[in-house]
Amino acid sequence: MKALVFHGPGERSWDTVPDPSITAETDAIVRIDSATICGTDLHILKGDVPEVQPGTILGHEAVGTVVEAGKAVTTLEAGDRVLVSCITSCGRCRFCREGHYGLCTGGGGWILGHLVDGLQAELARVPFADTSVHKLAPEIADERALFLADILPTAYEVGVLNGKVTPGDTVAIVGAGPIGLAAVMTAKLLTPGRIAALDVADARLEHARKLGADVTINNSEGDPVAAIMELTGGLGADVAIEAVGVSETFELCTEIVRPGGHVANVGVHGRPATLHLEKLWIKDVTITTGLVDTSTTPRLLELIANGRLDPTPFATHRFELADTEEAYTTFADAATTNALKVVLSAERAQSTAKDQTEALVGTAV
Amino acid sequence: MKALVFHGPGERSWDTVPDPSITAETDAIVRIDSATICGTDLHILKGDVPEVQPGTILGHEAVGTVVEAGKAVTTLEAGDRVLVSCITSCGRCRFCREGHYGLCTGGGGWILGHLVDGLQAELARVPFADTSVHKLAPEIADERALFLADILPTAYEVGVLNGKVTPGDTVAIVGAGPIGLAAVMTAKLLTPGRIAALDVADARLEHARKLGADVTINNSEGDPVAAIMELTGGLGADVAIEAVGVSETFELCTEIVRPGGHVANVGVHGRPATLHLEKLWIKDVTITTGLVDTSTTPRLLELIANGRLDPTPFATHRFELADTEEAYTTFADAATTNALKVVLSAERAQSTAKDQTEALVGTAV
Amino acid sequence: MKALVFHGPGERSWDTVPDPSITAETDAIVRIDSATICGTDLHILKGDVPEVQPGTILGHEAVGTVVEAGKAVTTLEAGDRVLVSCITSCGRCRFCREGHYGLCTGGGGWILGHLVDGLQAELARVPFADTSVHKLAPEIADERALFLADILPTAYEVGVLNGKVTPGDTVAIVGAGPIGLAAVMTAKLLTPGRIAALDVADARLEHARKLGADVTINNSEGDPVAAIMELTGGLGADVAIEAVGVSETFELCTEIVRPGGHVANVGVHGRPATLHLEKLWIKDVTITTGLVDTSTTPRLLELIANGRLDPTPFATHRFELADTEEAYTTFADAATTNALKVVLSAERAQSTAKDQTEALVGTAV
Amino acid sequence: MKALVFHGPGERSWDTVPDPSITAETDAIVRIDSATICGTDLHILKGDVPEVQPGTILGHEAVGTVVEAGKAVTTLEAGDRVLVSCITSCGRCRFCREGHYGLCTGGGGWILGHLVDGLQAELARVPFADTSVHKLAPEIADERALFLADILPTAYEVGVLNGKVTPGDTVAIVGAGPIGLAAVMTAKLLTPGRIAALDVADARLEHARKLGADVTINNSEGDPVAAIMELTGGLGADVAIEAVGVSETFELCTEIVRPGGHVANVGVHGRPATLHLEKLWIKDVTITTGLVDTSTTPRLLELIANGRLDPTPFATHRFELADTEEAYTTFADAATTNALKVVLSAERAQSTAKDQTEALVGTAV
Repeated sequence: MKALVFHGPGERSWDTVPDPSITAETDAIVRIDSATICGTDLHILKGDVPEVQPGTILGHEAVGTVVEAGKAVTTLEAGDRVLVSCITSCGRCRFCREGHYGLCTGGGGWILGHLVDGLQAELARVPFADTSVHKLAPEIADERALFLADILPTAYEVGVLNGKVTPGDTVAIVGAGPIGLAAVMTAKLLTPGRIAALDVADARLEHARKLGADVTINNSEGDPVAAIMELTGGLGADVAIEAVGVSETFELCTEIVRPGGHVANVGVHGRPATLHLEKLWIKDVTITTGLVDTSTTPRLLELIANGRLDPTPFATHRFELADTEEAYTTFADAATTNALKVVLSAERAQSTAKDQTEALVGTAV
Repeated sequence: MKALVFHGPGERSWDTVPDPSITAETDAIVRIDSATICGTDLHILKGDVPEVQPGTILGHEAVGTVVEAGKAVTTLEAGDRVLVSCITSCGRCRFCREGHYGLCTGGGGWILGHLVDGLQAELARVPFADTSVHKLAPEIADERALFLADILPTAYEVGVLNGKVTPGDTVAIVGAGPIGLAAVMTAKLLTPGRIAALDVADARLEHARKLGADVTINNSEGDPVAAIMELTGGLGADVAIEAVGVSETFELCTEIVRPGGHVANVGVHGRPATLHLEKLWIKDVTITTGLVDTSTTPRLLELIANGRLDPTPFATHRFELADTEEAYTTFADAATTNALKVVLSAERAQSTAKDQTEALVGTAV
Repeated sequence: MKALVFHGPGERSWDTVPDPSITAETDAIVRIDSATICGTDLHILKGDVPEVQPGTILGHEAVGTVVEAGKAVTTLEAGDRVLVSCITSCGRCRFCREGHYGLCTGGGGWILGHLVDGLQAELARVPFADTSVHKLAPEIADERALFLADILPTAYEVGVLNGKVTPGDTVAIVGAGPIGLAAVMTAKLLTPGRIAALDVADARLEHARKLGADVTINNSEGDPVAAIMELTGGLGADVAIEAVGVSETFELCTEIVRPGGHVANVGVHGRPATLHLEKLWIKDVTITTGLVDTSTTPRLLELIANGRLDPTPFATHRFELADTEEAYTTFADAATTNALKVVLSAERAQSTAKDQTEALVGTAV
Repeated sequence: MKALVFHGPGERSWDTVPDPSITAETDAIVRIDSATICGTDLHILKGDVPEVQPGTILGHEAVGTVVEAGKAVTTLEAGDRVLVSCITSCGRCRFCREGHYGLCTGGGGWILGHLVDGLQAELARVPFADTSVHKLAPEIADERALFLADILPTAYEVGVLNGKVTPGDTVAIVGAGPIGLAAVMTAKLLTPGRIAALDVADARLEHARKLGADVTINNSEGDPVAAIMELTGGLGADVAIEAVGVSETFELCTEIVRPGGHVANVGVHGRPATLHLEKLWIKDVTITTGLVDTSTTPRLLELIANGRLDPTPFATHRFELADTEEAYTTFADAATTNALKVVLSAERAQSTAKDQTEALVGTAV
């Protein structure tokens, strides 16, 4: 099959590689119908995630179709259409048993496109399939489900729910890239009084406005702390969501949050930040960090089915799966292309893969 | 009357000052029967709390007797024995209405011995008396209630409850001074599986052991992180409580906490700390800060009345109120004296004050 | 002044009565600008609430203007425009200190138009004014705030929040009178997946649809349990809100709730219900009851100010305050008039009251 | 092998039956080392649980040793010592994924000794073994772990945690049989201010006192409501736990709970109760029901390992497994024998089973 292979920092290519096969009875093989690229994939390509070995297939976000299920898989069968999530859950360890799949100590967690081969490929092996994929109802088109593989549950769980957003809150979201925008979209499920989006790029702030931000603040102009204080009568935001991943924006969050408020860090950080405990010790703030658990994914799927949530505006660019390399170029240059998320569709590839699938299905059943 | 007056950094004396009087109808005048000294008072004397004006009477922890109540005070009358808490609550602002008295924006919060005259005196004016003092049942002796004025609710609310201690948890308490020891004592209300106390002084660790710590670790010897990891099978503590107030101990807390765990900062910090977000972003930790609300004080009083809690071991040294200056010397030199808390009792002073009180009572009623 | 006086079961009249005056320093006198009538007022008139003494002025929902404040009132002054809520809070008792104002044991709770004179009058005495009224921003017109005096916080706190509605939930609301409809409106703040409204009257179900119910079920036709089970794939509703107050509808709620779900009772009941513990013991259900605390009223006011909530559709009929008797007739005959809430406005009365007010203000200041 | 077989109402015998074998790859075969009898087993024998088919082996509480694990079992191997819990969890359904194993819709829940063969036998087949048993550390003797198979987690989760017991609470536990006594024992983990136990049998109240109840009330003498009101200054208990399973005791719980308090039903009910909504609607009570999830079992095991919890006092009578019939007689006649829980040990049987086990192990590995 074909797949996007990481060959070390700065090196990737759309290669012919062996088809994956069941290696544990809890695995499933999934034909990829739609996939997407994450900012984290770009970090890997920069060499920021050294545990990713050259030769690894990238990608941790896809919608696909089960073509084979291991003998210990009890809830899936060939032909099932599924969302494959960035988080794999063993279903057996203490953390999985508590619903904290992101902390899985039984071989799961974030492994796809990281510690094992990922999803930017024609086929993928999904470990612990029973507890790591979500079956899709036929009425949910690929593009409506695809962004639930990562950005929506990440923004919702790690940003909105960790931040304990409640109706009427002033929510400040620092960073209006895909994750920050997904925080705008999912914060609205809890009807904040006001959502303020902060970023240095007007184009991203324009996206934020379209998705429902009430106030947008360009951090690079003027004083964002003063702007939030003016908005809140000097009190500060009830919830500040960090969606960038640098120390400056984290520190900004701790300055704009009100006494008794929440700072929810969603950004992936490469360096430490300064925590001004000399000011914060008395301020009753709660700061949270976290990797997504994807425990809310079933609920988010229901909200999509019920018409309460529509993630399709994130799909700004569409490619065939075979053109994944071009898609990377477009996504990596978001400043120019204004890309939010790219959709990789196995349109043509699908026919090929499908034939192959039927063969596999024949073997599997 | 006599009172301990702050005269600027390094300067304090037991002075004759005018008796306090009702200045707002919500005030009460309280005769001080027992008081104590806080580590914060030492900070004030060092000049670390610049908003304290020279001439201010220090102290924010006392048990006393109401001698006069303003006309708007509806729940107290002369003769009532009361605990006067470090936190004053206006009872009317948004934060007081929500039970967050420490964040009071209506003129309360931590004001006694800070922004207004305090309690190390023969008499004190207590603002917003209806919502800022706790009536004491006759069977609760002064010394059993006194440490509920600050250290017990502080350790319980800001350490144990913010840290979300639950039965079976491994709780690591960094710092075994009065606050850390109060955290040991109040954590036990929730039956942790193990309490580990960490400090650099063996004498304090010995106190921790006596109050119920299962494991004590001298930070200055060996590797405290390794010690906690060994204790927890490599996972880390469920809850880490910072009870020192320096960046090193805060950072230690973030290293010893398990994925998904809580760091509850109780220490008063004068400088920033480094937050290692490059490690913590993925670790699902919750970090809290806070000033005490004293919202649990009624419950802690009930636990004392029911024999479930006994704070009297904190009373290591006793003085007459008139000897407050000597008590300061003893308390400030805890490394030598091994003092935890000093009790200042108005034994002799009381007779004098009492006569005066009767006069006042005569006037008031 | 003029007021609507209860003269025993079935007897009410718009009488001339003495103006109220400050009887405790914590009182305020409020000129009523807008008031409304509650279903509970009808219950009182039927004799269902025997503790209401003949001679009592009815009404516990109003918007007005402070004309005089007692000496112990610190946050209000003559001229302040305020929402007077159905719940009075002493601000000092244990329950008020915890935010449970509805359980006040210090002389508050539901007392207006119940144990003391109420608000369907030209003037009213409001006890514990500092903690029992909400100041209104000038941009919030009377009619936008009025229904926050009772039905909106009642439906939100006792129905939606007690029921722990979360995004994606299927919420079944049994009863589509004013309270049930307010539950539809406020449940939407938390973006349920689906709201089903159940009632026996198609006219009320039509209101529910307009306010946002996705599904309406007429209980008197067919099988409502089967309808909910069909809607939820046989599982049942996540949350069932009882908004009628009879045993049949309560029992229906316990039948349509899913295992692990919540039944939130809002209805005022006069008789016991049967609790089928032989089915429910294993079902992990949570059943809550409650009187409103009005602790969310400030937040609901913010949501109105931010344009997130608009209660004005409840105002189906408008009267001058002087025509309160006619308003009662209209409201009591909702089956014919299709009335939800009536608005009583002191348009003409206001000029009279205002003159009087100025006199009073003159005295007070 | 030998097993205790249900032959229809009133009929049971210690029969020779075929050894169990793996029927799904997720099964394990466990040799029973220790088992016990539950009140529910007596209900089954009375014919109260009609879904139990004649021919079913009873029992849902045991400690044993894995002798064979299906191919899909990844966390267990022959020789592992395990606690087999009353609840089986498929690990894959929505409820298991949320930690509500008791509500499992994937083939688990309470099935052992109910819908499939149980644990009062020399060997047992345990479905979904990875997610349904708990490995035991060697230092935990059988008798220390055995009662975690049902009564301790049931009392703790469904009584104490559902009832939201917090330090200082007055907890009233109605019923001092094994479940009620386990509620006394586990409530103490949260340091209530006072535990009151209510029962009609002085012998059971004596057990309650020994396990830590502060107050005991014999319901059959005097007025239990008055007794609780006197104890609580007229307010009522913060938490009332129903541990009998009849309507009278449930109704008693709703009378003795304070406004704002919790009623946690643990009892298994065969008939409906009357819910006095005409009194309760205004009282802000929360009523919960539930089957145990056993989600706290790992924590309770840790508390035993750390010496914080000791369930061995429940073991009042000991039998060899071969004498299970005699044990039933003793347990069923608790009024005379004063039995709490009987321990069935495979002492002699073990040697036999062990030989057999070794054979099985030989086959399995």
